[in-house]
Amino acid sequence: MRRSAGNDSGLPEPIPFAEVYATLPLLHPTPRSWAELAAANLPEFLADHAVCEQQVAMYALSLAGYYPDDAELVERVAALAAEEVQHFRRVVAILNQRGWPLGGRRKNPWAQSLRERIVPGRDPWTKVDRLLFGALVEARSCERFTRLLEVVEDRDVVLLLSDLGPAERRHWELFYRLAGRGIDAEALAARFLGWREFEAGLARGLGVSPAVHG
Amino acid sequence: MRRSAGNDSGLPEPIPFAEVYATLPLLHPTPRSWAELAAANLPEFLADHAVCEQQVAMYALSLAGYYPDDAELVERVAALAAEEVQHFRRVVAILNQRGWPLGGRRKNPWAQSLRERIVPGRDPWTKVDRLLFGALVEARSCERFTRLLEVVEDRDVVLLLSDLGPAERRHWELFYRLAGRGIDAEALAARFLGWREFEAGLARGLGVSPAVHG
Repeated sequence: MRRSAGNDSGLPEPIPFAEVYATLPLLHPTPRSWAELAAANLPEFLADHAVCEQQVAMYALSLAGYYPDDAELVERVAALAAEEVQHFRRVVAILNQRGWPLGGRRKNPWAQSLRERIVPGRDPWTKVDRLLFGALVEARSCERFTRLLEVVEDRDVVLLLSDLGPAERRHWELFYRLAGRGIDAEALAARFLGWREFEAGLARGLGVSPAVHG
Repeated sequence: MRRSAGNDSGLPEPIPFAEVYATLPLLHPTPRSWAELAAANLPEFLADHAVCEQQVAMYALSLAGYYPDDAELVERVAALAAEEVQHFRRVVAILNQRGWPLGGRRKNPWAQSLRERIVPGRDPWTKVDRLLFGALVEARSCERFTRLLEVVEDRDVVLLLSDLGPAERRHWELFYRLAGRGIDAEALAARFLGWREFEAGLARGLGVSPAVHG
């Protein structure tokens, strides 16, 4: 454990991983060895993290473009995009303070494989899938941040991830709730199970690079 | 003029169009008849305006993705994206309050024609052009908002545009300044003149629909 029971660091106590994991829709936990790797390679982790925030913000804004008639969705994803842009700025500020490069666009095979499951033009399921995709991205990010918080010592990163973890948890729940409006609950759960199993299949091969979803 | 000299409406006095226009890099002024058309069709104007804000936010975020090594650009466009997302939310809130539809993605032939002038892979000019494109989008938006403020009576819209006009002015100046870093001033001015003349050619055929750039 990174911090002692006495916690005289002034930093927030990490929430036990198992406790957070139990609330998430994931079927394969990230190994602790991933967190050790990411903590040992913070410049790479943070550079990748910044791009994740930027891309989730763009994804949320694109959803508003796809579903302009869904007033609740538009309001919610716009608020989410605003949060993600602020997260992006916060990560960028840490990188800049340290002279660590941002890195920019890179392959994210995990997200790419998930995204390829979305088939346009088959509503209501296309819309449901776009939202379930968002739910899984946020859920896995939350899980990874929680894992990393167990081991990382860097004060700025501890404070960053302590703030962001709960936001990602709210976000996956929001995406899932938006997906479920007007959809039979059992059909939704079955659809999401298909996504969760697919994602777990990807996750089993990962945990081997310091990227957020690597 | 929308408001009397006495201005007992409590609303900000509109800045005279000619005064704002003189500070902008535009070579063809929008006719006042466009503002009359937009004021008479506020649901269409606001729906289009919302999409413009959403798309400018996405464009700004995409620039951070193109140029991750340019720390100043990344910081500035991220801050700009944050502002544009808030503008988007503000326009969406007005639409929702009134039960006016958002409308969503639509053709914007003016922006499309401009964007087609950007040729990838020819840096430094590709980067310069991406920023000059941003400068012109913001400048024309600023000009249109100023025009509309001369005639619109709707209190929420007056307050919205009174706030947004100055933001768009700051934004075009920011894009132009970012474009000019490390570029010979005369070469930059000549490049921008090509953009301005092309945009004026487009603008001469416009002013005929209530869209922000229509």
